[in-house]
Amino acid sequence: MTRNLIDFIDITPDEFDGLYWLFEDIMHSPHDYRDEARGKVSANLFYEPSTRTNLSFQTAMLRLGGSVIGFSDPSSSSVAKGESLKDTIAMMSNYADAIVIRNPMEGAARAASLYSRVPVINAGDGGHLHPTQTLADLCTIRMHLGKFEGLNVGLCGDLKNGRTVHSLIKALSRYPNVCFYLISPEELKIPDYVRHFMDIHNQKYIEVTSLHDTINCLDVLYMTRIQRERFSCPNEYDRLKNAYVLERAMLKEAREKMLILHPLPRVDEISVDVDDDPRAFYFDQARYGMYMRMALLTIMLRHRASNPEPVPIGGCTCKNPKCVTQSEIYLPPLTHEIDGITYCSYCDKQI
Amino acid sequence: MTRNLIDFIDITPDEFDGLYWLFEDIMHSPHDYRDEARGKVSANLFYEPSTRTNLSFQTAMLRLGGSVIGFSDPSSSSVAKGESLKDTIAMMSNYADAIVIRNPMEGAARAASLYSRVPVINAGDGGHLHPTQTLADLCTIRMHLGKFEGLNVGLCGDLKNGRTVHSLIKALSRYPNVCFYLISPEELKIPDYVRHFMDIHNQKYIEVTSLHDTINCLDVLYMTRIQRERFSCPNEYDRLKNAYVLERAMLKEAREKMLILHPLPRVDEISVDVDDDPRAFYFDQARYGMYMRMALLTIMLRHRASNPEPVPIGGCTCKNPKCVTQSEIYLPPLTHEIDGITYCSYCDKQI
Amino acid sequence: MTRNLIDFIDITPDEFDGLYWLFEDIMHSPHDYRDEARGKVSANLFYEPSTRTNLSFQTAMLRLGGSVIGFSDPSSSSVAKGESLKDTIAMMSNYADAIVIRNPMEGAARAASLYSRVPVINAGDGGHLHPTQTLADLCTIRMHLGKFEGLNVGLCGDLKNGRTVHSLIKALSRYPNVCFYLISPEELKIPDYVRHFMDIHNQKYIEVTSLHDTINCLDVLYMTRIQRERFSCPNEYDRLKNAYVLERAMLKEAREKMLILHPLPRVDEISVDVDDDPRAFYFDQARYGMYMRMALLTIMLRHRASNPEPVPIGGCTCKNPKCVTQSEIYLPPLTHEIDGITYCSYCDKQI
Repeated sequence: MTRNLIDFIDITPDEFDGLYWLFEDIMHSPHDYRDEARGKVSANLFYEPSTRTNLSFQTAMLRLGGSVIGFSDPSSSSVAKGESLKDTIAMMSNYADAIVIRNPMEGAARAASLYSRVPVINAGDGGHLHPTQTLADLCTIRMHLGKFEGLNVGLCGDLKNGRTVHSLIKALSRYPNVCFYLISPEELKIPDYVRHFMDIHNQKYIEVTSLHDTINCLDVLYMTRIQRERFSCPNEYDRLKNAYVLERAMLKEAREKMLILHPLPRVDEISVDVDDDPRAFYFDQARYGMYMRMALLTIMLRHRASNPEPVPIGGCTCKNPKCVTQSEIYLPPLTHEIDGITYCSYCDKQI
Repeated sequence: MTRNLIDFIDITPDEFDGLYWLFEDIMHSPHDYRDEARGKVSANLFYEPSTRTNLSFQTAMLRLGGSVIGFSDPSSSSVAKGESLKDTIAMMSNYADAIVIRNPMEGAARAASLYSRVPVINAGDGGHLHPTQTLADLCTIRMHLGKFEGLNVGLCGDLKNGRTVHSLIKALSRYPNVCFYLISPEELKIPDYVRHFMDIHNQKYIEVTSLHDTINCLDVLYMTRIQRERFSCPNEYDRLKNAYVLERAMLKEAREKMLILHPLPRVDEISVDVDDDPRAFYFDQARYGMYMRMALLTIMLRHRASNPEPVPIGGCTCKNPKCVTQSEIYLPPLTHEIDGITYCSYCDKQI
Repeated sequence: MTRNLIDFIDITPDEFDGLYWLFEDIMHSPHDYRDEARGKVSANLFYEPSTRTNLSFQTAMLRLGGSVIGFSDPSSSSVAKGESLKDTIAMMSNYADAIVIRNPMEGAARAASLYSRVPVINAGDGGHLHPTQTLADLCTIRMHLGKFEGLNVGLCGDLKNGRTVHSLIKALSRYPNVCFYLISPEELKIPDYVRHFMDIHNQKYIEVTSLHDTINCLDVLYMTRIQRERFSCPNEYDRLKNAYVLERAMLKEAREKMLILHPLPRVDEISVDVDDDPRAFYFDQARYGMYMRMALLTIMLRHRASNPEPVPIGGCTCKNPKCVTQSEIYLPPLTHEIDGITYCSYCDKQI
């Protein structure tokens, strides 16, 4: 498998099958893996707080018998203060056997991978990518429904801003006959580039506004938060918010085996009385996320440490203000072309 | 033994004997236990800082070969921010094999136990309960005096506000012929409800103000801090504070085997020149606390994880503003009756 | 070997040889040592942040199979707040098998060693001593040059304020025929007491201002930061700073096997284009520092815990405002004489 996990697309469907098999084995026989990472260390470099993701990665490493160092917020750390990403990665990859990085700049994980002696896992680079959330979602669906083919997948809430949802659409589009039910208010519909992606891949999807009218045909209902700050008009926020509160009573219409998922934390969009319904899987989803990260670390830690190849110094021309190349100016220019258009290989924006 | 340790009373005297035996064995043969918790993880959820208690629990888990995740102050953590206690516990009990919780709200540990897949240990819930401090105190006394029966136990300092002292009185009252010497200024005497408890249990006690006159008949001298902020008149504080500074010279009157205990940290109430006296056991007491927590975790970790039974949603009527039911409104109503009076089962206050 | 490592001088050249041998063996066969500290705990007490040093010690302990507790900044910790160093050490040495201490007061590590049941390692006490940095430097040099005898060692940058540089001079002076090239601006020359030390030890040294003219005869080039805040005149700072930016082009003059070292973090004094030169060893130096700390902990952890001998209380007369005896007033008076002059044994300043 790929030495670094930067983008979910780095993993082929076949590699995902192997990862899933390992995930299942670890979940059923965790004792067999409790020395898997013995004597090994992961460096969890969280340049912005994300306690939930960090704890999941930490627990995964610890349950494999390994250890964790790092920081959970650079403000509490002298590492990374005034030091280039390159130097921090060069130093930390001397101490650790794998690097797990969360950074607000888009493309930071790919940049880190250029200077690391050890595998790099992307735990979120701004609004860009968060591949292990998608892996957790897929493992949960496959675990309980046995397959992806032919599923009716409802995605409900804020479909405009959620990278989780976009990434899940991209991932499930690799399997045949999946149909997406995109349930959102007009104001929070899926962005054009995702609709375009589905269109050119002949992906089936239906855009609707009512959860009530749709819930009865779903195999998966993926709820997301609708965030107040996205709305200019508070009244509209309150009206829409109420439309998407999943309550126990609404589940009467739903299929018996439907999975209710949520990336957590929830606020009000799932009522507490849903938690005891056998279709509520959002807390299990968090547990599966931990086992999936155990599987991922197991595979990644098999790569041996080695000095990275030298790369050119400087010369990037990406104009995206959130791209990591804006602050780390020594980064080499990395681009790729699709249909004659040039994209930045850090942030994937057009140059 | 009980699946959760919320209150010291959850442990019967026989169970305490078993725990004590294990404590002694671990202390004498720590190597035999260094794989006891291998592959296991405790989640230490400290909603208010208590570094001393947290470090003791952490070290205990680590010395058993286990690992620790969690937070030491919710302000530095996005977990618990705006998330219900229920959701945090549901998630963390998916990651961990035991939960150690410290929370400023009374009854928070019991509330947590309703939603946890794994055992919950109360590491302090506001001014309410702190059972592992009492366990550490008892282990230290039994270790060095061999028994509780017939001991003269001096409790000195602020007896009004110290939950440590109240809990120790309750615990030692289960053994025959213990006599308490309650040494305090008028203003900081033991509260009525504790005096009432001793009276109905025919517990022997003597209330005095002078440590000098009492020290010669004690088997245990338990010192506590007198805190300046309890006094309206600074002069009075200074007078009383001086009365209770234990100095080396005062120990001439004391029994040769008397134990000097203190829950730490001390400020000025024990002079530095006492530290080298063979009767000074307050630093050993901290070490015994760690071994006792190793014993406790060993026992608790034998329980298997399982989904908690569903409970009703909401309906509590407790009016105690410090009760956890005030902020976590979905908690089910739990009450118990004593002599026809109804008490809240979270905070133990009358409803 | 010494029970505590307070000063580099605590280790004899023969003991260093033993430590170095162990360092090399651990680096080549880390798996053989991954259970060396199993079941053991180090307490890393960082009274001021030093993430780099702390992470190095943490990783070293974890790679030996041990665990780490402690704090990385006392402001985030209730331990040490208003508690004497003595009490914190007494408590922490009950929990841990070794103490690693960083403290802004000079002599704090020696003070801690008086009250500890377990070995104490000095991870920096103010501007006074930092022996493990020197150990890391020596291991790197010996690893790659095979010896210290006869080396030409260039020390470049701020030689006035760098305790790293002073300590390295002291350490290398123990070996024959070492010659120091002290490369610094006039304003940042080596202090008189170091020059005096070299003179009375017949140590060869040359003071120069140009790196360009000197680089061709060096076996080791040890770069340090020049800090802007040392200069009253910004123009002068900028002129001097530029004189000491090591760039790839300058390496054409340098010997093929010259080692470029730096204690890190660097700012601008080594250009990024030097990193890929085979003579750049500053990131490897950090890795060797970790292995050296593994060797050091391995040896130190062999000492058994035991209660420290009682010491007198109070009476110090050192006037150095940065000396630990100023704030910890119970410390016993410890002094030593050299040539009839009395020195404080905590901070090494004349009394």
